[in-house]
Amino acid sequence: MNKDRKTIAIDMDGVLADIEVQFMDWYESEYGIRVRADERLGVPEPEGFPDQNAIKRYVYTPGFFRTIPLMEGAVEAVRTLMEDYEIFIVSAAMEFPQCLSEKMEWLQEHFPFISWKNIIFCGDKRVIATDYMIDDHCKNLDFCMGKPILFHASHNVNQHHHLRVRSWNEVLDIFEKENAAKA
Amino acid sequence: MNKDRKTIAIDMDGVLADIEVQFMDWYESEYGIRVRADERLGVPEPEGFPDQNAIKRYVYTPGFFRTIPLMEGAVEAVRTLMEDYEIFIVSAAMEFPQCLSEKMEWLQEHFPFISWKNIIFCGDKRVIATDYMIDDHCKNLDFCMGKPILFHASHNVNQHHHLRVRSWNEVLDIFEKENAAKA
Repeated sequence: MNKDRKTIAIDMDGVLADIEVQFMDWYESEYGIRVRADERLGVPEPEGFPDQNAIKRYVYTPGFFRTIPLMEGAVEAVRTLMEDYEIFIVSAAMEFPQCLSEKMEWLQEHFPFISWKNIIFCGDKRVIATDYMIDDHCKNLDFCMGKPILFHASHNVNQHHHLRVRSWNEVLDIFEKENAAKA
Repeated sequence: MNKDRKTIAIDMDGVLADIEVQFMDWYESEYGIRVRADERLGVPEPEGFPDQNAIKRYVYTPGFFRTIPLMEGAVEAVRTLMEDYEIFIVSAAMEFPQCLSEKMEWLQEHFPFISWKNIIFCGDKRVIATDYMIDDHCKNLDFCMGKPILFHASHNVNQHHHLRVRSWNEVLDIFEKENAAKA
C-alpha cells in the first residue's frame, strides 16, 4: 500500500459485476419471464421478481456468482483509477460463504491485475477505512469512513442521500474532478 | 456494530488457530521428525524446518487450514472479550484462496457464536480500522490503525516493538486493565 495514494473501496455485486442482469437472466431461464429493471424500481432485489424466493435460491446456487457478467466499463475504469489511487475490492461475501471461491475466481478472470493484497471479503463494511467507497447499497455507505459514492441500481433509485453515479464513466468523471481539485 | 463498543481485530493463524502445532504435526507425519519450537526461534515459519519447502506445500494442501487445532484458551477468551468489545476476526487469507471456505468452516465449528458480519478475509490489513489488533505478524501490526498487540510465536521472538502477549490469559489481563482504566 502506497501511503501517498488515496484509497478507494469498490464493491463487487452491482458495481463491478452486473448482478441485476444475472438475476434477470436466471429468472428468465427458469420462469420464461423477463422482469425488466423499470418494473423493479425502488424494490429490494428479491421482492422485485414475481417468485420472491427465486433470488434467494440463486445466491446459494453454485455457479451463480462465478458467472455474473461484468458491469459495462468496469475493467477499463478500474485500470484508469489505479493510475492515481490504491484500489481495494471490498465485497460483503460472508453471508454466502459458498461464494468466496467463486468470487475469487471471478476476480482472477476479469481483474487479474488486482493483487490478492487488495481484495477484502467481509460482512460489515464499517471497519473498512478507505478514502472513498463505491457501493450500490446504502447500508454499506451510511456508516463508511470515507466519501460514499452510490452506484445506481434499480433497488436504490429512491435513496438520495449519497452522491449517485449511473455508470463507470460517471465514476471516472468524479475522480477526474477530484484530481483537478488536488492539482 | 454497536458504536459504543470498542472494536478488536483478531487474527486466525497463530492467534486463534495453533498453526505452529499444525506445522509440527504435519512435518512429523511426513518426515518422522518433531521440530520443536525452541529450534525455530526467530526464524520465518518455512525456514524453521529442515525441508524448507514443506511448509509452503502444506499451506496449499486441502484440509490443512480446516484441521488446525485451536489455540489454548482462545474460545473462552473471545467469549469473555465479546462481553465488552465488538470482535472482528481478520485473517489474511487471500494469499491462499483455496483456504477461504476451510477457514469459514473452521470458524463455524469453533466460534459458531461469531456472526458472519464480523468476519473479514483480506490481503493487506492496513485498511482495517479497529481500536485494537491482535496478530502474530509485525507486518500486520506495524501500520495498523488501532493499538497493536503481538501474539507470541516462535517466528516473532526477536521483535520487541509491540506489546507482546504469550497466551490468551495475558490478552484477557490486558483488556481487564483497559476496562479498569475506563471505569
